[in-house]
Amino acid sequence: MSDKAPSFRAAGTRLRGALRPELSAVCYPVPDDRIWRVLEGVHRFDKAHVVMLAEAGILDTADAAALLRALLDLEGREGGVVAARLSIGGGNHSGEKHLTQTLGEGVAGRIHAGRSSGDISAVANRLTQQQGLRDTLALLMHLRRSVLERARRDANVLVMGYSHLQHAQPATLGHYWCSWLFGLERDFERLRDLYTRFHFSPAGAAVLTGSRFDLRPERTAELLGFVRVFQNSRDAGWAADAYQEAAAVLAILLATTGRIADDLYLWSTAEFGIVEIDDGFCINSSILPQKKNPVALEHVRGVGRVALGRMVSVQGSFASASDSVVFERYLAVEELWRTFDDARGALELLAAVLDSLEVRQDAALRAFHDSWCWTSDLAAALVLEHGLPWRTAQQSVSVLVRQMMDGGRAAASVTEADVVQACASYSGQTGLELPVGFVDRVRDPRAIVESRIVAGGPAASDVARQIEAAESALERDAHTVQEFDHAEKTACRKLGEAVQALLDVPLPGVQA
Amino acid sequence: MSDKAPSFRAAGTRLRGALRPELSAVCYPVPDDRIWRVLEGVHRFDKAHVVMLAEAGILDTADAAALLRALLDLEGREGGVVAARLSIGGGNHSGEKHLTQTLGEGVAGRIHAGRSSGDISAVANRLTQQQGLRDTLALLMHLRRSVLERARRDANVLVMGYSHLQHAQPATLGHYWCSWLFGLERDFERLRDLYTRFHFSPAGAAVLTGSRFDLRPERTAELLGFVRVFQNSRDAGWAADAYQEAAAVLAILLATTGRIADDLYLWSTAEFGIVEIDDGFCINSSILPQKKNPVALEHVRGVGRVALGRMVSVQGSFASASDSVVFERYLAVEELWRTFDDARGALELLAAVLDSLEVRQDAALRAFHDSWCWTSDLAAALVLEHGLPWRTAQQSVSVLVRQMMDGGRAAASVTEADVVQACASYSGQTGLELPVGFVDRVRDPRAIVESRIVAGGPAASDVARQIEAAESALERDAHTVQEFDHAEKTACRKLGEAVQALLDVPLPGVQA
Amino acid sequence: MSDKAPSFRAAGTRLRGALRPELSAVCYPVPDDRIWRVLEGVHRFDKAHVVMLAEAGILDTADAAALLRALLDLEGREGGVVAARLSIGGGNHSGEKHLTQTLGEGVAGRIHAGRSSGDISAVANRLTQQQGLRDTLALLMHLRRSVLERARRDANVLVMGYSHLQHAQPATLGHYWCSWLFGLERDFERLRDLYTRFHFSPAGAAVLTGSRFDLRPERTAELLGFVRVFQNSRDAGWAADAYQEAAAVLAILLATTGRIADDLYLWSTAEFGIVEIDDGFCINSSILPQKKNPVALEHVRGVGRVALGRMVSVQGSFASASDSVVFERYLAVEELWRTFDDARGALELLAAVLDSLEVRQDAALRAFHDSWCWTSDLAAALVLEHGLPWRTAQQSVSVLVRQMMDGGRAAASVTEADVVQACASYSGQTGLELPVGFVDRVRDPRAIVESRIVAGGPAASDVARQIEAAESALERDAHTVQEFDHAEKTACRKLGEAVQALLDVPLPGVQA
Amino acid sequence: MSDKAPSFRAAGTRLRGALRPELSAVCYPVPDDRIWRVLEGVHRFDKAHVVMLAEAGILDTADAAALLRALLDLEGREGGVVAARLSIGGGNHSGEKHLTQTLGEGVAGRIHAGRSSGDISAVANRLTQQQGLRDTLALLMHLRRSVLERARRDANVLVMGYSHLQHAQPATLGHYWCSWLFGLERDFERLRDLYTRFHFSPAGAAVLTGSRFDLRPERTAELLGFVRVFQNSRDAGWAADAYQEAAAVLAILLATTGRIADDLYLWSTAEFGIVEIDDGFCINSSILPQKKNPVALEHVRGVGRVALGRMVSVQGSFASASDSVVFERYLAVEELWRTFDDARGALELLAAVLDSLEVRQDAALRAFHDSWCWTSDLAAALVLEHGLPWRTAQQSVSVLVRQMMDGGRAAASVTEADVVQACASYSGQTGLELPVGFVDRVRDPRAIVESRIVAGGPAASDVARQIEAAESALERDAHTVQEFDHAEKTACRKLGEAVQALLDVPLPGVQA
Repeated sequence: MSDKAPSFRAAGTRLRGALRPELSAVCYPVPDDRIWRVLEGVHRFDKAHVVMLAEAGILDTADAAALLRALLDLEGREGGVVAARLSIGGGNHSGEKHLTQTLGEGVAGRIHAGRSSGDISAVANRLTQQQGLRDTLALLMHLRRSVLERARRDANVLVMGYSHLQHAQPATLGHYWCSWLFGLERDFERLRDLYTRFHFSPAGAAVLTGSRFDLRPERTAELLGFVRVFQNSRDAGWAADAYQEAAAVLAILLATTGRIADDLYLWSTAEFGIVEIDDGFCINSSILPQKKNPVALEHVRGVGRVALGRMVSVQGSFASASDSVVFERYLAVEELWRTFDDARGALELLAAVLDSLEVRQDAALRAFHDSWCWTSDLAAALVLEHGLPWRTAQQSVSVLVRQMMDGGRAAASVTEADVVQACASYSGQTGLELPVGFVDRVRDPRAIVESRIVAGGPAASDVARQIEAAESALERDAHTVQEFDHAEKTACRKLGEAVQALLDVPLPGVQA
Repeated sequence: MSDKAPSFRAAGTRLRGALRPELSAVCYPVPDDRIWRVLEGVHRFDKAHVVMLAEAGILDTADAAALLRALLDLEGREGGVVAARLSIGGGNHSGEKHLTQTLGEGVAGRIHAGRSSGDISAVANRLTQQQGLRDTLALLMHLRRSVLERARRDANVLVMGYSHLQHAQPATLGHYWCSWLFGLERDFERLRDLYTRFHFSPAGAAVLTGSRFDLRPERTAELLGFVRVFQNSRDAGWAADAYQEAAAVLAILLATTGRIADDLYLWSTAEFGIVEIDDGFCINSSILPQKKNPVALEHVRGVGRVALGRMVSVQGSFASASDSVVFERYLAVEELWRTFDDARGALELLAAVLDSLEVRQDAALRAFHDSWCWTSDLAAALVLEHGLPWRTAQQSVSVLVRQMMDGGRAAASVTEADVVQACASYSGQTGLELPVGFVDRVRDPRAIVESRIVAGGPAASDVARQIEAAESALERDAHTVQEFDHAEKTACRKLGEAVQALLDVPLPGVQA
Repeated sequence: MSDKAPSFRAAGTRLRGALRPELSAVCYPVPDDRIWRVLEGVHRFDKAHVVMLAEAGILDTADAAALLRALLDLEGREGGVVAARLSIGGGNHSGEKHLTQTLGEGVAGRIHAGRSSGDISAVANRLTQQQGLRDTLALLMHLRRSVLERARRDANVLVMGYSHLQHAQPATLGHYWCSWLFGLERDFERLRDLYTRFHFSPAGAAVLTGSRFDLRPERTAELLGFVRVFQNSRDAGWAADAYQEAAAVLAILLATTGRIADDLYLWSTAEFGIVEIDDGFCINSSILPQKKNPVALEHVRGVGRVALGRMVSVQGSFASASDSVVFERYLAVEELWRTFDDARGALELLAAVLDSLEVRQDAALRAFHDSWCWTSDLAAALVLEHGLPWRTAQQSVSVLVRQMMDGGRAAASVTEADVVQACASYSGQTGLELPVGFVDRVRDPRAIVESRIVAGGPAASDVARQIEAAESALERDAHTVQEFDHAEKTACRKLGEAVQALLDVPLPGVQA
Repeated sequence: MSDKAPSFRAAGTRLRGALRPELSAVCYPVPDDRIWRVLEGVHRFDKAHVVMLAEAGILDTADAAALLRALLDLEGREGGVVAARLSIGGGNHSGEKHLTQTLGEGVAGRIHAGRSSGDISAVANRLTQQQGLRDTLALLMHLRRSVLERARRDANVLVMGYSHLQHAQPATLGHYWCSWLFGLERDFERLRDLYTRFHFSPAGAAVLTGSRFDLRPERTAELLGFVRVFQNSRDAGWAADAYQEAAAVLAILLATTGRIADDLYLWSTAEFGIVEIDDGFCINSSILPQKKNPVALEHVRGVGRVALGRMVSVQGSFASASDSVVFERYLAVEELWRTFDDARGALELLAAVLDSLEVRQDAALRAFHDSWCWTSDLAAALVLEHGLPWRTAQQSVSVLVRQMMDGGRAAASVTEADVVQACASYSGQTGLELPVGFVDRVRDPRAIVESRIVAGGPAASDVARQIEAAESALERDAHTVQEFDHAEKTACRKLGEAVQALLDVPLPGVQA
């Protein structure tokens, strides 16, 4: 049996013999790379539980002080609590294991009253997830600010707007960035909703039904930084949706960032050439001296796709009778933590790429050379200024395009006469008269962008309004993040103070 | 070319020749089972757009009235709007196609001013999704009520509590049902958050940048029942997250219902036998005369698993440059609609199963015969009443179990002396004295259940409190659903009135 | 109860009451769009089973003839067997239902001897899947021929080779197409392996353990066209891997075709412009008169992504105790049939797109204007002709590129002196002497392509060899497809003959 | 810039500045847990490439010997090649980095001639995958032997056969195990097909089109242990299907093993109680002294579900233009390696669980007490011995079951008279006469099992035949595994000899 395993096996107890090596190899590997991410949470729960037990009179104050001292001792070790606990082994029970080695079972054996592996794991997972969400929210705020800054800088950069990846209409880069701002705002909301939805403590639920011990779960919750306590002890420990929603929400977030990366990837090709990725986010080739490979974008795109598979792994892991999924949960959660890591990395990376991005207005303008992206505006002008039904105008212009292409004529060469003739071709009606300059007026991409009347469009003034709206959303959300952080810090302080209060209690028989 | 296709191809226009049959076979099949779910939304947008164009002065009032009359005509046809539009063909453009056939291009050609296939599709998808969400919310309320009713009826039913699917501790069925109540409450929240998050209209965004037409998108939004208008026209049409979040939230919901079904499936086996599924939800066998197959549960479990794959299909469909995903979107949305259908079916079915479920207290009690599920309480009593450290008590009892099993002793035969001896075996310490009746007291499952002090547990009083909390949540959420429904009805009424107002305008030159 | 349901419920039998509408709505919808794809297989099994029962002496010859006559009658109805059986209802048992209505239970009740819903479903699914695979194999052959034809036509078309979507090295389009030929060959192999792996009959396995009836499963297998019989009756009916492997193999195939479509999509942008998709595979826009949207490619790309989710749906559906997955299986298989449909559509569509594709050598050459894609060959030439270590050469050329870019120098302007100086800059060593024309020689893309010595490269002669190899693989695989088809036809003939033989038996007491 | 990064950046070369920390943090982490699994393969390719270059005359023999000596030096270091290369950094280029540090660029710079990061990565991935497949095949053989051994031991163990998890028919455990034997045989075939399909070397393909160097790819392939060489250099490096198929095939394998675990999990509950998992594969509880948690089964079940998500991650990663997926590939492959690890662990664990499994015939027999699982045989006997049509018999027995249940009658109490009456109730016909003992004869589960005539059933003799068939398949497959291993060892020996031959070449000017 691995002595790192969290087992209370001993001669004569329930189970015979040691853990088989085939099992410990996969479930309790050494080094244990499965449990480390939650050990900070386990440690915190150990302290909060001792404090609560002492305050509730279940644990003697002197014992509590001894337990806390020994737990604090771990914090001072090299590599901190995580390294210390990993070297002790025992995972969720590394605290008790350490305490038993230090203080003996007579004292250490009291820490687990009213707890089970079930709520240790639930609490530690919850704390780890909430910390992951706070990190993600903060990094997402950072990315949103980077996108906002780009929207400001590129507000007037004229770019081709695409649909079906074909030239569609003139647009601005500012408008493009704003579109992501509102998407990322919704990603923020999803993360925030998730954070709030599961801001309750599973501590005290034990394995399923709670226990005979007269615990004070509200106090443990407070010391752990949760705003509420579970409403049902079975739901506290066995529900799957916290993990499932986290995996889904992160997958959607990383799909968003992946799509931004995908666009930039395309735009940084020689053929599009609209943006230049900073060299620091690219690598060269071992064989092609001229190459500049935008691997940062590949990474961001890639983690988005991996995250979707992780959503499947996480959700699929729970597809069994609801009282039965335990070690599958460890596997599922491991996949989830990896996605949190990916999210942190990708958000930071994409923000840095955006901050250093070089936009090339000159290259972007190339797309307008001899482009037909103004024909929808030509049709609209025929409707607005000459009363044609939309469909008649649109089809007539469609005929125009066909005629010009067949005649080998460039888009820039279209004249009012061409338009008139195409209209006649389509409708059979003659009589349309177009003033000189009509075509040139509707052909200018900047004018087209500025002609957009509907709010939310690409015109400079409109982009400015969108930036303003996004800024105010950012401010509001920054406040939320601060509140979350503040509450967390307050809880940490309270736990510290409560621990200190117990350590300060004079030992019995000792003169102060 | 299929004459059902939404194409404006004609001799001499941009594209040569007809749609190739290989393309129309997959993209415009006849009958078109891909588009029908959104046609109600397309129709509604057609009407709202005409009203708005007329009110904005872009469309002549007489033309508007003619258009509306022809659209209303579709509503009166057999099979309603959907059947009528399917027979016309043209999908998103079935309205214009119908109008053209009826009124000619001179009038019909005016309906599309300021619109594109892009925002027709976005609007119709959004309306369909919001309707799907309202249906799902209503059916979920219904299921929650069924679960609540079960919690009430089964509040005191004593059942084995499991972990790792092994006998763990006594529990109550009421506690079990309550655990799902809080989970389903979170499913409701996720659906509601989604509904609210995307309660904005994409109408007016056209294909990407809006248009030159002086539209009034707020008015269209009002007539369509949306509370807001898009903030960015690119986000309005090209964002993927509405679909992704819907697929994810439904997948999580159907995972929840699937897990309930999975539990019932197990419990309805001969071996568990705790519940009896009503015959009406079972089928017999063509070969095994005694069989009663609980296929309703298999269906509910199955759609939960299919929904996860659909989440992958939906999200994966958008993994390309963000301006390029159009016909992949049709495929993705089709998968999503199928999941909405599944959700409707599964919610209704599971609620009906629960309503008619027979619970067998007698069979449930069988699990307690000669069960060791009381040993954790024995250990706790040793701690609470005799001061043992938890670990010492737990390990001693573990030794007890081992000794009894080795000695061929039944759980029901354990005496105080056995316990004392096991404690001595473990700790080497003698001197523990247990009063007569100690073991019997901690062995009684009902007493164990009632001993649970921590709130959220299985004791009758506690379950009652949970039911109360769940009821008040239900009331709050019922109010939300009513609000959503009321707003929808109000919007429909407003659209009706606005249409009528235009129809009532006297035709020019006609004496009233 | 829906009278379309395959139920043998009747007053006084095992189950009370009718199917509840909530169940029949989802499991036995009317019209039944869940069962129709397998009804041909059910029908064929009905006939083969009757033949085998009669030949085995379990069924009276006259009864067999009556049953077969009534079954043949269905084939003559409008819409054929599928429509006839759908109108009868009863799904897997539509045959018995029809026979009972026609002949009464006294005769009809004999058809199910030694069968169960289990093996009806297994047989019909297997037949449907094998048919789907034969269709897919044939269409894949067709696609491979289209790719081969492209490889031939485009063998010498010079195109930029990319890596990281950046200009890498000169290549030929012939080489590109050949790369897919070998990939599609592997797709073919996977489908063929799958076809062969499951070319065994589940008929006779009944629900789990076979039956007391002295059936002749080998004969049934022969009449159904299977080359083998199940080895274990539990494996015959309950194994999941036929579905799982089919879903996976199709997902990989559709990923391959999706990637080809993705490349063409990119190449048909204005920016790349290398290919022109035939107008017949594109649609125009309702608002942008100049647009030509390559939706065929979007469709092919999209079904590839949907197929991956379906793989999840299919596989996930089986994640329960292995004796328990029945109605989940119906859901899973439905997803699988949809993927077969998608595969058929996509293979046919992509082949048609390729057949009509216009390749633009002139546009492809634009990428070489002022391109640095020859620098790896410059480095190689420095190694081969001047003895530099590869790394020294590669880094020197990398310095060259940097210097040229910094100096605003075009790639086309590089001289031998520039190279010498860059080498000196990098290595500090002077003395390298390059003959006049050295740079021009290594700069020519056609020459680079032809310089590729390693087999499998882009040179014309090499592409020719690859085409030859692909052709011979195609021939071999065509033979396989023919064998599969021939075996199937033979089986159909045998079944027909066996049926006829029974019909030809003189009725007792009738003079021939 | 991390000095672990595989970069050839230097002052004045193509890219300016160092890698940005946000990029190196995710793409080149320290310690590098992303690259280690392929480093053995990289090392082997380094050696084989040097040998081939020397043999082809591209590399001077003395240089080759120096390079090989320095590479061999890594093998002797503590922790072996992997640890040594990780400490050097540089991943795919750790060899060249080490050589440069040791021998200087003048010699070391020659190793990369004719190679690129692309084919280093492709070769190392292929070698790693083939090694993973050989490991998996060997462990799968081991598992199949364990299942076979169980089939032998449990051949006659009578167990309830289930369908819909309801009592269906008597069966034997031997039959159950055989059913998995044939399934695992197909898993073996899939792995073997995959191994064979990709048994070709990508070495020499360089980044896309090969190179100007006159390499001998067949020789490199031989030294690397591949039986073939790529046919197209683009396919060699850019194809995705090797990874996709591996992920799929492993997912299907782990679904199979997961389903076996799922069954055992159910059977080891108190309620089923058919099997007892060895204590060594279970853990106890920290709070419930009596608990024995079969976590080994949860692990096996869990990895099956995670593997499905990984299939999505792997396949999804390639969903972009086919020349563009590079760093996504690293992410994808990492997920794949993790699945290989899981497969190794799960196969070994499940085999060990089976080897030590205790089967409880006594407990299994409990299910037959008062069971109705014999009614299908009653119906069959009525058909076979009394000429009833199957449906009439089956429905009559169905009526019988209903009547007995309604009358509170146990299954064991059914008499011939009851059967006669039920038949009369159903058909209205009297006159059926059943001999005394008729019911008892068809009620005996052992007799039912032995009555199964169709081959592949649960009867002892039949199971024996199945075991024999499975044994011969095992023998055949063992031969395949040996061949694969032998070929690998031969290749390793050849590489060793070729290296030695170069080391043995006398240095110029040195007297032998």
